[in-house]
Amino acid sequence: MRRALSLAATPGVPLGPNPRVGCVLLDDAGATIAEGHHRGAGTAHAEADALATAGDRARGATAVVTLEPCNHHGRTGPCAEALVAAGVRRVVFAQPDPNPEAAGGADTLRAAGVEVEGGLLEDEARELNTVWTFAIDHGRPFVTWKFATTLDGRSAAADGTSRWVSSPAARRDTHRLRALCDVMLVGTNTVAVDDPLLTVRDEHDQPLARQPLRAVMGERDLDPGRRIFNGDAETVHLRTREPDTALKQLYARGRQHVFLEGGPTLAAAFLRAGLVDEIVVYVAPMLLGAGRSAVADLGISTIADAFRPRVTDIAVLDGDEPNVRLTLAPARTDQGA
Amino acid sequence: MRRALSLAATPGVPLGPNPRVGCVLLDDAGATIAEGHHRGAGTAHAEADALATAGDRARGATAVVTLEPCNHHGRTGPCAEALVAAGVRRVVFAQPDPNPEAAGGADTLRAAGVEVEGGLLEDEARELNTVWTFAIDHGRPFVTWKFATTLDGRSAAADGTSRWVSSPAARRDTHRLRALCDVMLVGTNTVAVDDPLLTVRDEHDQPLARQPLRAVMGERDLDPGRRIFNGDAETVHLRTREPDTALKQLYARGRQHVFLEGGPTLAAAFLRAGLVDEIVVYVAPMLLGAGRSAVADLGISTIADAFRPRVTDIAVLDGDEPNVRLTLAPARTDQGA
Repeated sequence: MRRALSLAATPGVPLGPNPRVGCVLLDDAGATIAEGHHRGAGTAHAEADALATAGDRARGATAVVTLEPCNHHGRTGPCAEALVAAGVRRVVFAQPDPNPEAAGGADTLRAAGVEVEGGLLEDEARELNTVWTFAIDHGRPFVTWKFATTLDGRSAAADGTSRWVSSPAARRDTHRLRALCDVMLVGTNTVAVDDPLLTVRDEHDQPLARQPLRAVMGERDLDPGRRIFNGDAETVHLRTREPDTALKQLYARGRQHVFLEGGPTLAAAFLRAGLVDEIVVYVAPMLLGAGRSAVADLGISTIADAFRPRVTDIAVLDGDEPNVRLTLAPARTDQGA
Repeated sequence: MRRALSLAATPGVPLGPNPRVGCVLLDDAGATIAEGHHRGAGTAHAEADALATAGDRARGATAVVTLEPCNHHGRTGPCAEALVAAGVRRVVFAQPDPNPEAAGGADTLRAAGVEVEGGLLEDEARELNTVWTFAIDHGRPFVTWKFATTLDGRSAAADGTSRWVSSPAARRDTHRLRALCDVMLVGTNTVAVDDPLLTVRDEHDQPLARQPLRAVMGERDLDPGRRIFNGDAETVHLRTREPDTALKQLYARGRQHVFLEGGPTLAAAFLRAGLVDEIVVYVAPMLLGAGRSAVADLGISTIADAFRPRVTDIAVLDGDEPNVRLTLAPARTDQGA
């Protein structure tokens, strides 16, 4: 299973909405017959990948796979049936499939006489696909809220200028995180005021080939001349002010990970609704003394009610002006199984 | 000289306004005859300490000392004369004495026929006594401004409550830094509103034996019932609003290191006057969204004018709520020789 987990974690894949999955086919002596992993939506699942390599040698083998073999006809056929057809004798998997449309593979296998064992190294397997698992468990995308602030809580000076609060290293790091998401979400006000590109760009400021969806939420009409309507990425206007509604619409489009970079008012709406799952803050070692607050009113009036998310990581981004990146996890009571 | 520096750095001394100094007496073969170091105001200087141990063996010796031997009659006699009287043949020192009242030791020694060499490992010697050297060079105490803030730049909630923004580890760390200073400075407003103790306390909240001077600046009268007038430490009211005047008064009292913990308005006055030499910020991983700003208006209106001190240290103070401590050095153009 450790080898299967390692195959699943092959860098760079999958580049899409599908989970990372690895599969190893073993003979009775425990020797490897074939290996496979999933490379992204539309390509072979890990089991099919391994079975194609094994050919007839799969007969009587044990399949070790990081995710319960799927049971549905998507863009590729169901893996449970493929394993049965190939004559696999035993299947050991780590994480049960949380996707109601794809689950049931274990039952299908058992009904066909295949020996099935689940849950081996399940935590490690879930760790490979935390966002995918979260999105299916909650029926909405995972939300990362990112903001940058001075040491005194300002995101811009009194005249509105904000270039740059964050250091070059912090801005590069932000693009790295944007690339891990599949939606860039802001409000109509940010588009009107800041006219951002909302693309993932490399060190030369060139857009990468794969771009998250650019989503703007709010009821106000958008000026079609804004930069988010250039051709570098897909753009959608969600005509709602409700965080929950916006997230459901994005989930319905197959999106799993929202990067929230809108202004403080939008972020406050998500926080108040309990719809922020991760906070990434870049703290720049400068003082402004006045200007735009990085965080808007959260309805907190006394220190006992302060919003105290759990700190999951603190990193220093080196440079002439070292920025500190804090990663925080708001407490959740609605955590899925 | 390295041994002399090491003696000077003996932990725990000096506990007063004097510099750390170490001295080693060597014979012609380079073997150690005696060692000495200064233990604080009113006790023997490092040279006298070493000479007392050496007795007659000092005749013809080389004295290696981290600071130019003093030339003045303070609470103890001048070291230059004592070295001559003991028959020392050669003196090697690191840092020239910056104190105009005490300087001239090298000249006195040379006039008496002693061979003198200065400047060996001078940087290392200055490093032992940065605050002492700074105070003499500038004719005022070194100023450390400490503040605590939430991630969004608040020092208290909307209702004024602030216990606690900082974690227990950050509060302990603050007391450690207070103990390194000889003045705790706040404004009259802080005394009126917060009624702080301004003492250095141990883990059981008990005051340490040695306390910095408690200084309150501002023209408003102080209520004698306030806690700063308890007997745990000396307290002084400086009837001025001018940072420069307050610092000069404190220097005249022999004070070298001010720990500025007043409110944001007082700190802003010091910052604007260019009279902050070190900033220590504790950033707590919480959000308030509203409340008292940790830093007051600094007269900055655009990002290009942001106050960008140099970062000299970043540390994470572990605990349930890890706080980040940043230490910063404002750029100075008036740095002494």
